Amino acid sequence: MQFSPLLSRLIETLTYLPGIGKKGATRIAFQMLERNREGAMALSHALHDAMEHIKHCRMCRTFTEDEICAICANTRRVDSGVLCIVESPQDVVAIEQTASFEGTYFVLMGHLSPIDGIGPEDLGLDELEARLANGKLQEVILATNPTVEGEATAHYISQLCQKHNVAASRIAHGVPVGGELEYIDGNTLMHAFSGRKTL
Amino acid sequence: MQFSPLLSRLIETLTYLPGIGKKGATRIAFQMLERNREGAMALSHALHDAMEHIKHCRMCRTFTEDEICAICANTRRVDSGVLCIVESPQDVVAIEQTASFEGTYFVLMGHLSPIDGIGPEDLGLDELEARLANGKLQEVILATNPTVEGEATAHYISQLCQKHNVAASRIAHGVPVGGELEYIDGNTLMHAFSGRKTL
Repeated sequence: MQFSPLLSRLIETLTYLPGIGKKGATRIAFQMLERNREGAMALSHALHDAMEHIKHCRMCRTFTEDEICAICANTRRVDSGVLCIVESPQDVVAIEQTASFEGTYFVLMGHLSPIDGIGPEDLGLDELEARLANGKLQEVILATNPTVEGEATAHYISQLCQKHNVAASRIAHGVPVGGELEYIDGNTLMHAFSGRKTL
Repeated sequence: MQFSPLLSRLIETLTYLPGIGKKGATRIAFQMLERNREGAMALSHALHDAMEHIKHCRMCRTFTEDEICAICANTRRVDSGVLCIVESPQDVVAIEQTASFEGTYFVLMGHLSPIDGIGPEDLGLDELEARLANGKLQEVILATNPTVEGEATAHYISQLCQKHNVAASRIAHGVPVGGELEYIDGNTLMHAFSGRKTL
């Protein structure tokens, strides 16, 4: 059916949200109009302000509206001298939720992918190299995804570390805690065996 | 973890969308920031304009930014003299998608529910009665939901119709097309039998 122009536009733009299709967008549009106009207005303003003001942290490239994000502004964490390299801000969230890492991050916002034209400069590796060169880092933990591109990126960065005499480590690959061996793929199992620890 | 204030606000307000939880909102926020800032901006403006300008049609009470919606502005449909009463604008969408109804609608925006303090005036039944009284309607089709409140609302409106000598009909209850008898509840089956048609 033909919706009014404003309603059509609202439904159309709601489908820009990842995971929302035409049907879901229509349902959301009607529900917001019927029950939560203030909420929708608040969302409109929050979206506007976020898209306008949220940029990248000057140190770690994660999303923040400040010059430097809260983690990079924490001197205790900076002084630890440990830098964890991840592909995306979501990875920072996942690691922060474990509350076990005390260093700072460097967010690549992607991975090396020559086929898509994504080279070292696009990932800010020149900035990273400058930090490796200034001698304040003790260790770099490579926490890129365990995919082909992630591994290649980790390998590239490990060579930069070597060049500047900074210790580099890769997060362990193995059997996820709570998983069942039966359902683990062979590649992961191989890693779990070769990475075994003596008790 | 602690997000920056603007990011927290964006995630918080995204959960106002029906069906979106904290985790989904976080995912959406990051994806929009990373990949579709223009889309998010467009959504922000569409939300703002829709919430600001979309009101109810003066004739049928459905959502529109115009004085009168497209269906009520169609003289061919108004002249048919058939009025279909539904509970919500979504019901109008569902019926319009069948492309089989040629009359106009009246949207109650709810159903009679004394326990929630929703009486006839809240559903615009005074306006409806004025239209029943002016003698231009031939038939009223009651398409409220087949729930206790929907049936009560239909019953109430059928009495208004009787008072003003306008024919009232209720949509048929029965076995949905494509359904299997085995899985149909007893109440629906009873309706299907009592409403049987001679062939």
